Amino acid sequence: MAKIEGVCREVCESTEFVTIVTSGDDGPHVVGNWGAYMRTLGIREDMIVLPAGRYHKTEQNLRSNNRVQLLVASKQVQGTRTPGQGCLIAGTAEILCTGELADAVKAKFPWARGALVIHVEDVMPQL
Amino acid sequence: MAKIEGVCREVCESTEFVTIVTSGDDGPHVVGNWGAYMRTLGIREDMIVLPAGRYHKTEQNLRSNNRVQLLVASKQVQGTRTPGQGCLIAGTAEILCTGELADAVKAKFPWARGALVIHVEDVMPQL
Repeated sequence: MAKIEGVCREVCESTEFVTIVTSGDDGPHVVGNWGAYMRTLGIREDMIVLPAGRYHKTEQNLRSNNRVQLLVASKQVQGTRTPGQGCLIAGTAEILCTGELADAVKAKFPWARGALVIHVEDVMPQL
Repeated sequence: MAKIEGVCREVCESTEFVTIVTSGDDGPHVVGNWGAYMRTLGIREDMIVLPAGRYHKTEQNLRSNNRVQLLVASKQVQGTRTPGQGCLIAGTAEILCTGELADAVKAKFPWARGALVIHVEDVMPQL
C-alpha cells in the first residue's frame, strides 16, 4: 500500500526542506536536505531518495540503528483546522554509494557521494 | 555573546518551519513548529520561544534530558557556495506553563498550553 499519498504527498511536494534524524550512542543526530532535491529524484510511494553529500555521522548511526525519522512541512498545504501541515515520516534508511540509485543521484548531483535511501513505513500528519 | 546572529539569524528570520528534536528512552522524538510563530514571539540573542500546543512527549523527554536540537533552513539565505542555508541550533529547553513567558505565548496563541523555551548554546551553519 502506498505510504506517501494524500496530504503527506502534498507536503512532500511543497516542503522547502527536509529534516533527517538518526540515533547514535551520543543521542539524536540531525541533518537537512532540500525538498527540491527530494522532488528532483522522484518521491515513490514508499521510498524517498536524497543526495548524500557528507552525512558521515548519519551513515555511521544507520549502520548500528537503521531507524530514521523525517520531518517535512508546508504552510501551503491545508491542515485540519488552519493552513499549514507537517508530516512525520518514519522508516529505515541506508546510504548507498554504488548501484542504480547512487548512479541516479550522482547523475543529477555530481557533488554527491551517494544516495540516502529512506524506506518509508509510517507517515503521520501533524496538524 | 549573542548566539543567534549573522547568517543564523537570517535563516531564523526566513525559515518556514522549525524542527525540534529531543531524546527519550525510545530514541529521538521529532516535532515541528512554524517559523512565523517563532518570529511572532521574538528571537532573542540566545533564546527562542515557541508556543507549545501538545508536546507532551517533548515535555516528558526534556524532564529527564533537557538537551534539544533545532533545525531551520531557507533557500532565501545565501550559503557559502550556493543559495540556501540551514542552521542547527543546540541547547537546553523546558516547557513553561506559567509565568511571564507562558503568558506572552498565551496572549498571542490562545490555544497554547505554554511556552517551549530554548536556551541556545551552539549554532552551526550547515552549508
